[in-house]
Amino acid sequence: MTAFDALFVPAAIRDAVSGQAWLGAMLDVEGSLATACASVGAVPAASAEVIAELCAEPDAFRWDELIDQGRAVGNPVEPLVRALRARVGDEHEQFVHYGATSQDILDTAAMLVARECIAHILGDVDQAAEQCARLARAHRGTPMAARTLLQQAVPTTFGLVAAGWLVGLLDARRRLRELAEAGLAVQLGGAAGTLAALAEDGARVVDELARALDLRVPTVPWHTNRVRVAELGAALGTVAGVCGKIGLDVVLLSQTEVGEVRESTGGGSSTMPQKRNPVRATLARACARLAASHAAVLQGSLVQEHERAAGAWHAEWEALCGTLAFAGGAADAASESLAGLEVDANRMRANLDASGGLIVAERVAFVLAGRVGRGAAHELVAAAAAAPGFREALVADPRNSLSAEELDALLDPVGYLGSAEPLVDRALDRHDAERRSDG
Amino acid sequence: MTAFDALFVPAAIRDAVSGQAWLGAMLDVEGSLATACASVGAVPAASAEVIAELCAEPDAFRWDELIDQGRAVGNPVEPLVRALRARVGDEHEQFVHYGATSQDILDTAAMLVARECIAHILGDVDQAAEQCARLARAHRGTPMAARTLLQQAVPTTFGLVAAGWLVGLLDARRRLRELAEAGLAVQLGGAAGTLAALAEDGARVVDELARALDLRVPTVPWHTNRVRVAELGAALGTVAGVCGKIGLDVVLLSQTEVGEVRESTGGGSSTMPQKRNPVRATLARACARLAASHAAVLQGSLVQEHERAAGAWHAEWEALCGTLAFAGGAADAASESLAGLEVDANRMRANLDASGGLIVAERVAFVLAGRVGRGAAHELVAAAAAAPGFREALVADPRNSLSAEELDALLDPVGYLGSAEPLVDRALDRHDAERRSDG
Amino acid sequence: MTAFDALFVPAAIRDAVSGQAWLGAMLDVEGSLATACASVGAVPAASAEVIAELCAEPDAFRWDELIDQGRAVGNPVEPLVRALRARVGDEHEQFVHYGATSQDILDTAAMLVARECIAHILGDVDQAAEQCARLARAHRGTPMAARTLLQQAVPTTFGLVAAGWLVGLLDARRRLRELAEAGLAVQLGGAAGTLAALAEDGARVVDELARALDLRVPTVPWHTNRVRVAELGAALGTVAGVCGKIGLDVVLLSQTEVGEVRESTGGGSSTMPQKRNPVRATLARACARLAASHAAVLQGSLVQEHERAAGAWHAEWEALCGTLAFAGGAADAASESLAGLEVDANRMRANLDASGGLIVAERVAFVLAGRVGRGAAHELVAAAAAAPGFREALVADPRNSLSAEELDALLDPVGYLGSAEPLVDRALDRHDAERRSDG
Amino acid sequence: MTAFDALFVPAAIRDAVSGQAWLGAMLDVEGSLATACASVGAVPAASAEVIAELCAEPDAFRWDELIDQGRAVGNPVEPLVRALRARVGDEHEQFVHYGATSQDILDTAAMLVARECIAHILGDVDQAAEQCARLARAHRGTPMAARTLLQQAVPTTFGLVAAGWLVGLLDARRRLRELAEAGLAVQLGGAAGTLAALAEDGARVVDELARALDLRVPTVPWHTNRVRVAELGAALGTVAGVCGKIGLDVVLLSQTEVGEVRESTGGGSSTMPQKRNPVRATLARACARLAASHAAVLQGSLVQEHERAAGAWHAEWEALCGTLAFAGGAADAASESLAGLEVDANRMRANLDASGGLIVAERVAFVLAGRVGRGAAHELVAAAAAAPGFREALVADPRNSLSAEELDALLDPVGYLGSAEPLVDRALDRHDAERRSDG
Repeated sequence: MTAFDALFVPAAIRDAVSGQAWLGAMLDVEGSLATACASVGAVPAASAEVIAELCAEPDAFRWDELIDQGRAVGNPVEPLVRALRARVGDEHEQFVHYGATSQDILDTAAMLVARECIAHILGDVDQAAEQCARLARAHRGTPMAARTLLQQAVPTTFGLVAAGWLVGLLDARRRLRELAEAGLAVQLGGAAGTLAALAEDGARVVDELARALDLRVPTVPWHTNRVRVAELGAALGTVAGVCGKIGLDVVLLSQTEVGEVRESTGGGSSTMPQKRNPVRATLARACARLAASHAAVLQGSLVQEHERAAGAWHAEWEALCGTLAFAGGAADAASESLAGLEVDANRMRANLDASGGLIVAERVAFVLAGRVGRGAAHELVAAAAAAPGFREALVADPRNSLSAEELDALLDPVGYLGSAEPLVDRALDRHDAERRSDG
Repeated sequence: MTAFDALFVPAAIRDAVSGQAWLGAMLDVEGSLATACASVGAVPAASAEVIAELCAEPDAFRWDELIDQGRAVGNPVEPLVRALRARVGDEHEQFVHYGATSQDILDTAAMLVARECIAHILGDVDQAAEQCARLARAHRGTPMAARTLLQQAVPTTFGLVAAGWLVGLLDARRRLRELAEAGLAVQLGGAAGTLAALAEDGARVVDELARALDLRVPTVPWHTNRVRVAELGAALGTVAGVCGKIGLDVVLLSQTEVGEVRESTGGGSSTMPQKRNPVRATLARACARLAASHAAVLQGSLVQEHERAAGAWHAEWEALCGTLAFAGGAADAASESLAGLEVDANRMRANLDASGGLIVAERVAFVLAGRVGRGAAHELVAAAAAAPGFREALVADPRNSLSAEELDALLDPVGYLGSAEPLVDRALDRHDAERRSDG
Repeated sequence: MTAFDALFVPAAIRDAVSGQAWLGAMLDVEGSLATACASVGAVPAASAEVIAELCAEPDAFRWDELIDQGRAVGNPVEPLVRALRARVGDEHEQFVHYGATSQDILDTAAMLVARECIAHILGDVDQAAEQCARLARAHRGTPMAARTLLQQAVPTTFGLVAAGWLVGLLDARRRLRELAEAGLAVQLGGAAGTLAALAEDGARVVDELARALDLRVPTVPWHTNRVRVAELGAALGTVAGVCGKIGLDVVLLSQTEVGEVRESTGGGSSTMPQKRNPVRATLARACARLAASHAAVLQGSLVQEHERAAGAWHAEWEALCGTLAFAGGAADAASESLAGLEVDANRMRANLDASGGLIVAERVAFVLAGRVGRGAAHELVAAAAAAPGFREALVADPRNSLSAEELDALLDPVGYLGSAEPLVDRALDRHDAERRSDG
Repeated sequence: MTAFDALFVPAAIRDAVSGQAWLGAMLDVEGSLATACASVGAVPAASAEVIAELCAEPDAFRWDELIDQGRAVGNPVEPLVRALRARVGDEHEQFVHYGATSQDILDTAAMLVARECIAHILGDVDQAAEQCARLARAHRGTPMAARTLLQQAVPTTFGLVAAGWLVGLLDARRRLRELAEAGLAVQLGGAAGTLAALAEDGARVVDELARALDLRVPTVPWHTNRVRVAELGAALGTVAGVCGKIGLDVVLLSQTEVGEVRESTGGGSSTMPQKRNPVRATLARACARLAASHAAVLQGSLVQEHERAAGAWHAEWEALCGTLAFAGGAADAASESLAGLEVDANRMRANLDASGGLIVAERVAFVLAGRVGRGAAHELVAAAAAAPGFREALVADPRNSLSAEELDALLDPVGYLGSAEPLVDRALDRHDAERRSDG
């Protein structure tokens, strides 16, 4: 639960999901609520001021005490409200937490916590994307073997591999940004979503509170409509999954027998002096698994009872923290892995050549098909592929009408890169366009 | 896997994810690919015509044979291509499956299958939304008890409950429609995503194929960038989850001891003549669980190796079918449950009154707080709440300065509905606006 | 991740999965390893003594530093070994961590951490079982409505309900105890499972280490055979699930409209003075969801690469902690919920009688079937069930040959409890037998 | 859901989870129930005979009709009972389904379906284990590189790798066999678990029914105590996971750049004549993912309401079928992959030698540590490891006191296999012992 967090999750994100962060967010909500109520006349301005001032001092409260007291009532808001009331004194205490229910505070605070975390996560995603773009540009034409089902298939370029990672990041980032911008909404419904304690001021207080906290106004209170939480989870899980895919490829390309890339830092072993483990990529993969599992809890928590769930809502708190933390861990690890990635173009070329042309067997079969028919061509090439020397077998086969020069040209993997390079350009163009549209 | 499907999934969606549907979709892709290749001159027009004609006859092939043969190679496309080649004859066979790899066909077919299913699912979601809107309108002001942690909390209206369901459906539908419109992309990358076998025609063939099938053109081939599949899964799981929440509420409101709603059809028991089980709601809940689990497989499948995964991709086929099927089952069951829902407003009122005013204890405490201070008011009301008769205890308490008339007015639950009715209107306005924007 | 843990997880279990606990466990393993090596002569006795002494002082190390340094190499063992070596000095340092790899230490420590937690969890499960037994005994014959699909079905006794909970706990406990006794094994394989660095001493050191730590000797090192970890996860998830089922029933029976049980402590609301929420039961349900999700990560981590996985192993650390913590949270919450459960036998009886005999419609139909045939009887009873007064309709129906006295006897729910009481006895007998076999 | 099943799941298991199999199992239960009731005198012998005869003719019923009709009532048992009653005629119809509820039939049938499937699955697991044992024996001493985090670590033998797979299978099999033998119980509780409709005959009918079907007698009816179903799911998921681990290793060892093993059948590509994909291993991995996801639904379904759940139970039907099917698919695929595995010992040796001794750097450092101290030795070896030629660098380093002969001996990987071979023997001994104990 906690002992290993610091190994996976960068400090900034650990801070952003910490008890201190939640406490600060809850106090922001309580303070802003008082001010919002005052702005419509539901709460005296003097009381709102006292409350808001107190809420600006998170150090005056201790999260561990609140959470400990929260065990009895099932959430930490009730003890916080008690503490606030005790501090503001008799005159103002009735205006603390005015018209709100615990879930209003906790859900709105969750939106603030999520926003802060997502900002960090998007920063790491952007850095990872930048690294992919750099690699795609630098290795636009660097030939390497593409691998399907982990078998060498046909040639590609490392630039296109990196461009594929880049597009995955852009796709995942798009949704997370969309949600960060339009999916985070204020929660204010009172005891059961009718805003009854605010009488006719309800809608205006909601609007004011949303404005103050820079959150959206929902159609109706969303105490048990958890679509926005589930969607947040899915978007974060997707970011983590894309980073996990990058991590997986880095691990595979770093294998001793492949050796095409290498993480430049870390990864030593206490017993094996020669080891250089792909540690960042490994951590990205671990984080992707963990983020997916937490996100699945959020999906499962869509099904909540009546106006407040007995359990499914409570499970969300842990799961949202976990999804944010491990999505953050995945993005950070992927970004660091890519930033220090050493690319060995010679090894890529050597691996590509190691099959003696087999990797372009598709191409030879294709050209021969135009001469001897597809079936005969496939058969001829398959027979040669099974022989010890592919080129020699092709040359020796009487059915083969290709000259040695033609054959050598066909067998050059660099001549069979197809649209790899223009595809890299498309990915880079999109990256540039999306980066510009941010600025 | 199969034996119980027909109990959960409506026939239209079973058909839409059936082998026959997949076969038809794959043939559409192969046929359109030949035509697209011909349009750029990569394939002779005569060959394309022969191929396209054959692909228009799905009855000429048997899915069960293809899938059986597919076991040896790990997918059903290779046997289909063999069958197509055998049929078109020597002259044309080399132009079958031109420039494509099995994954191109299967992934693009998956997009077509998904589109067809989603159309059905959105239809059911729309019907469910329509039913919610009807209930929200009809019961805009019908008072009932809101329940938090399954305890009566404060009054609400059944209209607001239905409006909450409605907004959940609208939220979930928004994303699914978005993806149906902009998230379904053609897959065409050739053996490993470089479009090498199409030489310089690659990009144009992709464009033509996308146009023919009315799918998007992706930035680059997405053989191992599975964001769009994971996002589809998340959106479908969210739809199912929202339907599951409706099902859960219907089950809870249908309890013998609550009796506020009742499904009008089905639900008999073979042994208990009095039973009327909330069967549709029950099935919606079951489908929500199953859809979430399949969607989680799709999230987990984001992490795929190199240019084609060895397993994670294959797992997607089952999981995508399952997510579509059970999201469809959930939407269908929720829609049917709502369509026949009998609402017992008298029972709602009786349940509301059963606590003798306890349900508006918050309100009494609130008003008293203005007179005797919040702490004293909370204490006074809590003491009365613990007594056998709440009203009597309040009246008897000397600290209480409310007159009997004031008290009776305060204790009337219908006077404490807050913004329930305007909130219903907001939900209905949004529903109307989104429906108009479809037309 | 961390902020809310203390709300769900009891302090003893938080301590038992804390960094301090892991540190202590790792030091136990390193210390015992040195001693085990010395016992077979692989390490000088003097060195072993120095190392073991240092390892007995966990306060000499700081977990947060180790985990922080561990980020670079991907685990906290390597920095711990470095710290140990630095402390023991040049003469002994080569005998620190002798023949082991980081995973040996971490996996064996995980077994120790798990054992400690499981002891606490089993203690809570035993207490929960004891409470169930008490309730089953006390309410062996207390009639109440059994509910299927949340509809009143036929009468049962609250004793049988509690006995059902008890049997669930006994079933789940059996497996967890089995694993605690026979499923926790030492891990020692060296760099890649061959015990190469220990030369011919390997097997004896494994035996000695297992003896010292009271763990099992595995057939072969289990670096990437994670069956025992997955099984542990499943057993813990099952415990949590059974506790979640109890929590769910308590929540449902506590509903305002049902009111048959009530948690005696906690559950107040800051705004609604009348509320008494079933907080413990709610937390048990939340913990069950969270434990299941962590356990699923452990199941998914069965698939690990070669001799040490790059990610799946790392994900286990968080997931194992989480499974232990939330299984512990579920057992604790269920136990507390049951310990303070107030049972309202009068309300049970009132709910049972509320249907005017409908709840024994099955019985009436059954008896009538013997007289008029099953079809006619079912029809007759169903018609009466649909009428406003069930008994009156039965009396009025000319097809009914039962006398009023016969009918009244049949309609008495207490006369239709079947084997409820003997079944309670069976559950209690098993509970007693299993408790005796522990002692 | 269905379209791709035949690609993953062998025919025998598809049959064993088919509607026909479920129908047969349900009829077995209904037939045996009538006979059991007759044996205690609760049902006339003549009626029991008629009913049992009819139940012996599964072809007299159509599953697809039953499941279709079952949609209205939420399960297929009620229509089956109606059909049975219609067939046996007025005289006997009241003795059909005597004293039972739908869940009794469905749950007991599930036990029978599971037993049949598990027999097939254990058969495949046994075959896979046999193949592992064969490989372990044949390659007991075949040296190859062990890989941690996918980096060459130290030498091992392929025999030990296969022995590791074997032990995983043995561990997973143990639990599944245990459950097949002692975990499958009859379900008979009547409408809500009290056996009321059987009056005082309840316990004896349960015993008779269990005897007739060769199932266990549970302590009490387990309608909402789902521990046995969750445990079954976990055991099946574990089997699938172990098979997935084998599949993953086969995929990795089959990589073009590794080439140490190769599946001997299947795996051709329609476009790339040289491809030989590890298809069986790939399918095993896909099945492992799918089985885990279905098993997680069963874990989640532990939390069920009251005496019969509204949804969680229903979700089990699909999930149990899926877990059985894909565990079966995983075992079958792993078994086939192993049966045809070609092992290339030369390539193993070549890969081992490729690092020029780096793979035994640990050993060199270890020996040097005895001479120059651990720190200096580690430094010296690490420096040499970073040089272009490891052996040359070691020889050239003045701090190195090893002679060239000593060094060559140390650098021979075959000299550093540790306990690999005795560990193989331990695994084989256990395999033999467990096989003997079956016979």
